[in-house]
Amino acid sequence: MNASNHENLAVPSLSARIERGDVFSSNCPSREILTHITSRWAVLLLAALLNGTHRFSELRRKVGGISEKMLAQTLQTLEHDGFVERISYPVVPPHVEYRLTPLGVEAGRQLESLVGWIETRLPSILAARPQPTP
Amino acid sequence: MNASNHENLAVPSLSARIERGDVFSSNCPSREILTHITSRWAVLLLAALLNGTHRFSELRRKVGGISEKMLAQTLQTLEHDGFVERISYPVVPPHVEYRLTPLGVEAGRQLESLVGWIETRLPSILAARPQPTP
Repeated sequence: MNASNHENLAVPSLSARIERGDVFSSNCPSREILTHITSRWAVLLLAALLNGTHRFSELRRKVGGISEKMLAQTLQTLEHDGFVERISYPVVPPHVEYRLTPLGVEAGRQLESLVGWIETRLPSILAARPQPTP
Repeated sequence: MNASNHENLAVPSLSARIERGDVFSSNCPSREILTHITSRWAVLLLAALLNGTHRFSELRRKVGGISEKMLAQTLQTLEHDGFVERISYPVVPPHVEYRLTPLGVEAGRQLESLVGWIETRLPSILAARPQPTP
């Protein structure tokens, strides 16, 4: 965390004081972002939302194994971090959609690349593991 | 998970039956790999080891906040997954070093890119968050 040391002057916001994060430093706020976007469900949701706007039920179907609770919770964290936008249409019955913000698109591309690498290299990764004895 | 259906023939290994993983499928083994390499400490260790061979104590210093126990445990998981190699020199006192395998270098590059993105974009990410009321 590269923050200049003016805490007692005009109290600039944290974002204005930080030029660049340092994830190797345990008290840098980048650590929290890292934890949020690398949680299993966040990785999958950010990668899924790269394909465009989705409804809650569509995300639930797309991301195999996610519970309603974890989906709602992860979307909320991603919304709070500014990666996902929740669009609520004033209709009956209520219609809510989720889409990536420009920052979320950037994050999603990073994670899509990681996920693509894992998917492509899975045979080699499994082959490199010690084989269970039959 | 694209696996062909010959379980009862010559029992080919899982790695031979899988052409490519699918992280969106809850029973694909790629999910486990995703969980392992996106754990907070694995991300940081794989990125740190991109700079070359390290001793345990060097990794402990480099990755701020990691405990001895979590460092040992994460290195063991990464070794089991074939991303990290443990080299033990037969000297007194014992000298052990850790380095990435070729697969680990690939994983490390993916995570270095993700970490670099978070570090660079941290000011924008923090600025996009709702500001705490003073």
